[in-house]
Amino acid sequence: MSDVRQVPLATPTDGGTWRSPADRPLRLDSGAVLAPLEMAYRTYGTLNADKSNAVLICHALTGDQYVASTHPVTGKPGWWTTVVGAGLPLDPERYFIICPNVIGGCMGSTGPASPDPTTGKPYGLAFPMITIADMVRAQAMLVASFGIETLFSVVGTSMGGMQVLQWAADYPERLFSAIVVAAAARHSAQNIAFHEVGRQAIMADPDWRGGAYELEGVRPEKGLAVARMAAHITYLSETALQRKFGRELQRDGLSWGFDADFQVESYLRHQGASFVDRFDANSYLYITRALDYFDLAASHGGVLANAFLRARNVRFCVLSFSSDWLYATAESRDIVRALNAAGCRASFAEITTDKGHDAIFLEEPNLDSALRGFLASAAEKRGLA
Amino acid sequence: MSDVRQVPLATPTDGGTWRSPADRPLRLDSGAVLAPLEMAYRTYGTLNADKSNAVLICHALTGDQYVASTHPVTGKPGWWTTVVGAGLPLDPERYFIICPNVIGGCMGSTGPASPDPTTGKPYGLAFPMITIADMVRAQAMLVASFGIETLFSVVGTSMGGMQVLQWAADYPERLFSAIVVAAAARHSAQNIAFHEVGRQAIMADPDWRGGAYELEGVRPEKGLAVARMAAHITYLSETALQRKFGRELQRDGLSWGFDADFQVESYLRHQGASFVDRFDANSYLYITRALDYFDLAASHGGVLANAFLRARNVRFCVLSFSSDWLYATAESRDIVRALNAAGCRASFAEITTDKGHDAIFLEEPNLDSALRGFLASAAEKRGLA
Repeated sequence: MSDVRQVPLATPTDGGTWRSPADRPLRLDSGAVLAPLEMAYRTYGTLNADKSNAVLICHALTGDQYVASTHPVTGKPGWWTTVVGAGLPLDPERYFIICPNVIGGCMGSTGPASPDPTTGKPYGLAFPMITIADMVRAQAMLVASFGIETLFSVVGTSMGGMQVLQWAADYPERLFSAIVVAAAARHSAQNIAFHEVGRQAIMADPDWRGGAYELEGVRPEKGLAVARMAAHITYLSETALQRKFGRELQRDGLSWGFDADFQVESYLRHQGASFVDRFDANSYLYITRALDYFDLAASHGGVLANAFLRARNVRFCVLSFSSDWLYATAESRDIVRALNAAGCRASFAEITTDKGHDAIFLEEPNLDSALRGFLASAAEKRGLA
Repeated sequence: MSDVRQVPLATPTDGGTWRSPADRPLRLDSGAVLAPLEMAYRTYGTLNADKSNAVLICHALTGDQYVASTHPVTGKPGWWTTVVGAGLPLDPERYFIICPNVIGGCMGSTGPASPDPTTGKPYGLAFPMITIADMVRAQAMLVASFGIETLFSVVGTSMGGMQVLQWAADYPERLFSAIVVAAAARHSAQNIAFHEVGRQAIMADPDWRGGAYELEGVRPEKGLAVARMAAHITYLSETALQRKFGRELQRDGLSWGFDADFQVESYLRHQGASFVDRFDANSYLYITRALDYFDLAASHGGVLANAFLRARNVRFCVLSFSSDWLYATAESRDIVRALNAAGCRASFAEITTDKGHDAIFLEEPNLDSALRGFLASAAEKRGLA
C-alpha cells in the first residue's frame, strides 16, 4: 500500500506511458534491477471519486494495451472488443479500465528493444529475464500511480489470467475481485515444449544475430513467423480447424509442389507473416520464457492453495473453454480447487465451445453472460450498482 | 499380377537395393515418371516354397527399412524390435518379412537426394511430387520382383498404415490380410498444419538453398531440427510428456537465460539434433507433402467404403491408441466403419495407453496380444499354422 503514497500520480487520460522515478526501479525475481521502467497503457472510462471502479486488464502473450482501441500498427480493432465497450460486460461508462503493456513487451513498456541505459543501444539479450510476478509488480506500481488503493477487479485471459493469479498471491489486499479466463497456475511440459519450438525457430534464424538484430538493421522474420505458426495451432481446437478449413484447397486442384495448396496452410502462413509486422522476436523469447517459468505452487511451498491464503476477501471468477487444449479446463479446476482449499470465494464455469483457446476473442454468449453475472454481483457488493 | 511375370526376380537375401528395368519406370500420380527406380529394402526370414508367408512392413514418415536391424547411421536397434523378431508377433522363423524404404526417402530408395538422370546431380526440388499411392505402386513392383503373388500380410504403422489402406484399395487381390496401426484415411487440417510448420521451418533455413543444398555442400540442419521438434510434440500425449518430464529442471535452479532449463526442452533439442544426422530435409518435405495429399475417400468418389469394395477377401485388423492425438481413435473408427460398409472383415481394437502415438514403438502388451491373435488366426486360415 505504501507505493500509493510514494509514486507520483499519473493523470488519468486515455493512455500514455508512465515512468518510474529514478529511485524506484523495478526489482526483478532474477535479482536484476530494471531502471528506468516505462509502462505503456491505455485507459477507458473515468475513475470515480472514491477510486473504487478501477479494473485492470492483463493481456496474453502476444496481446498489448490496445484492448478496445484501434491497433496503431495493424489498424485492427482492439483484441477484446467483445468484452470491453459500451453495453458490454466491461463498460467504460461504469468502470475505469486500465490495460498496460507487460514489461518485456514491444508496444511501449520496457522490453528487450528498449535502450539499455548502460549502452544507449537496444538491450537485446542484455535485457534481464522476467517473470509473471515481475510483470505484476510493475503493474502494481502503475496502478498505484493513479492513486488507486484497491482495484474493483483484475481481469486476464491466458497469460493475463496467470497475472491475475499472481496479483491474488502478491497483492490480495489491493483486489476486490479477480477474473481468470482460460489460464493455468503453471506451464505444463507440453506448454513448455511448444514454446521451446518457437524459441528455437527464432534463434535458428541467422537474422536473429544472437539477439542483436536491431543494431544490425535486420529482423528474424522467418523464424518468428514459424514460431507464430506453431503456437497458432495450439490456439485452435482440432474441431475448429477441421470445420474452418478441413482439406479445402486454395484453388482448383493440387499444385504438386510446395505452394500453399490447402487453405489451412495459407491461413497459417498469413498468421506468421502478419505477426512479424507487429511483434518483436526478442519480446517473444522473453515473454515465452516468463510463461515457462510460471509455477505458482512451486513458489508457495509446492501447494497452490498457499498462494491464495491471504486472498479470502477477494471474489474470484474462473472460466475455461471446453475445447481449449492449451490451458485445458482441468487446469482451471486445479485453480478452483486450490482457491476453495484456501477458503476463497470462487465461481467457476466451463464454457462449452468447440473453438479452442481462441474462444477468448470470439463472440461467446456464455462468456458474455458469465462475465456480466459475476461483475454485476461484485459491483453491487462494492456499492457500484 | 502381370508385374510378377514382367519384372526380374530378386534373390531373397537379407536386403539390398532393387532396380526397376529401364522399360519399367514408375508412373506417378502427378503424371511424372520416375526412372530409374531404386528400392532399398531389408528382409528377415525365408520365403517358403509356395511363397505364401510373405509379410510387407510399411514404415512411418521418418522410418526406414531397418525395422529389426541395427540402423547404419545411428547404430540403434531397428524401429520395431518390439514386434519383429524371434518369439515376437512377426517372427522371421515363420514369415518372410520385407521392409522397403519408401520412395522419396533417404535411406537408399529413389528420393530427392538421388541423382537426377537428366543432370547427374541430386534432384533437389526437381524430384517429382509423390503420393502414398506412388509409394505403394513402387512397393508392389518390389514385392513382385520376389515372385510373390499374394502377401500373407501387409502391415503398417502411422504413414505405413496409410500405405496399407492404399494397398487394400489398389492391390486387394495381392493381399491375404492387412494390419493398420495408428493411422488415418486422410490427413486432417491439424495434421496438415503441423506439417506446414515443419516445411516452413526447413524452407526458412538459408542453408536449404531452395532445395539445392547438397550441391552447395551445406544442410538446413537448424530448420530440419525445428521441424522435428514440432512434429515430436504430436507423437507424445500431454499426459506422457507431463509424466516423463513435468517441470523437471536440467540442473539445480533456473538459468535465467535461454539455455535448456527444463528437461523437456533438452529432450526436444536432442530429438531435433539427432534427427538431422539421419534424415534428409528434402525427403522430409516430400514425404510430409505425400501425407498431406492423402485422402483415400476423395480418390474414391468421396466415399471411403468405395476404396475397399474389391477387398472383401482381405482380413483387416485396425488398431489405435487411446491417447494418440496425431491419428486419433476416431480416425480408426472411420476406417472400420468404411470397411464394414464395404462388406470387409475387420477386427478393431483401441489399445488403452497414455503414451500417445509413440506407443507404436514401445512395449505395449495389448498391442502385442492384438497382433499375435490376429496373425495366428490369419495364419491358420492361410495354412501357415
